[in-house]
Amino acid sequence: MSELTIYTLDWVPEGPRGFVRDLRLRWACEEAGLDYAVATVPFDDRQTNHLDRQPFGQVPYLDDGGVQMFESGACLLHLARKSEVLMPCDPQGEAEALEWTISALNSVEMVSVPWWFLKMSQGPDNGLADWVGSRLAHVEQVLGEREWLAAGRFTVADLLMADVLRIPDIRGFGNRPATEAYVARVTDRPAFRKAHADQLAHFEAADAVRAK
Amino acid sequence: MSELTIYTLDWVPEGPRGFVRDLRLRWACEEAGLDYAVATVPFDDRQTNHLDRQPFGQVPYLDDGGVQMFESGACLLHLARKSEVLMPCDPQGEAEALEWTISALNSVEMVSVPWWFLKMSQGPDNGLADWVGSRLAHVEQVLGEREWLAAGRFTVADLLMADVLRIPDIRGFGNRPATEAYVARVTDRPAFRKAHADQLAHFEAADAVRAK
Repeated sequence: MSELTIYTLDWVPEGPRGFVRDLRLRWACEEAGLDYAVATVPFDDRQTNHLDRQPFGQVPYLDDGGVQMFESGACLLHLARKSEVLMPCDPQGEAEALEWTISALNSVEMVSVPWWFLKMSQGPDNGLADWVGSRLAHVEQVLGEREWLAAGRFTVADLLMADVLRIPDIRGFGNRPATEAYVARVTDRPAFRKAHADQLAHFEAADAVRAK
Repeated sequence: MSELTIYTLDWVPEGPRGFVRDLRLRWACEEAGLDYAVATVPFDDRQTNHLDRQPFGQVPYLDDGGVQMFESGACLLHLARKSEVLMPCDPQGEAEALEWTISALNSVEMVSVPWWFLKMSQGPDNGLADWVGSRLAHVEQVLGEREWLAAGRFTVADLLMADVLRIPDIRGFGNRPATEAYVARVTDRPAFRKAHADQLAHFEAADAVRAK
């Protein structure tokens, strides 16, 4: 039995497939060579059926040999401590990986996710568009100068930032060649491709069960 | 000379005083008994004058004996490793402090900050209001059942969550007595009161210089 169990939903509609955040955890485990199992909570009543495990009713959450935690960003930082592949050991490299991991969550996603949400009702030129554009321009400037965000090599920060930036909707924000190349480069990694394919297969297999 | 230097702006207008995020770092250092210095970058041209140190043009950023980092959330996690006051050492306690720290950044602030931003142009009933209300209700449910978010005692997660929740604007979201009591309890800590007073004094002293 694996020490690590990643919890996700048993099924989701087509739209979010390939983007449900258990992907981040699968990907991290694949990069680090960590053995893991995948378990599920039901899609139906998902907002209330696992509040004891995830108080916002979301997925993923993680069980690591009995230690339980939620928030994909927290799970990534937890997993990253298990492998230097994800998190450098030298103080400056570790600081860089940590700051860029938090940047992905609190400087980029903090504007891109609410912008995406408002896009559904108010269109792409909603009140957060300029802010998203500004943040993406800063990221483009950084990625124009270097290949990886932290420590001169792939780290958990790239895993998370690339996942945040690969949302198709935000590709419309200006000409950002360095960012495009970065996302293509990071998501071409075998660990991403396996995690992505595994998530798609997981939800596809659930279609048959759900159809019964 | 202190090993730790917290960088903030040399001056800000009245509005953000008491809320600039160097407060989070001052507060963490006060809780942990860590000696620190405060240094500044100019308010004027702040969006471009320190991009080499903070690629989004924001404050704070931290220097820890030559190791530099930005993002208040990342700096807090970095400081938290220096003191068990901020971060428990047992695996479950550490997981809880980490998950709730990330929750404050990526589940609460990810909706509350963009909501606050839109409030200026679209009012409080903007397109993110329901989402903010839902997240705050989840937090209220948790805080109705326990005094602290993680490990049964104050941790860095409470420092950050209380700072996120004390924004006056979000007090209008329904009757949330447990959250109100929590914010009052956490911000009554001597370390918060000192950090808050020190930030106000810092910007007040700058008024005289700026007036010249």
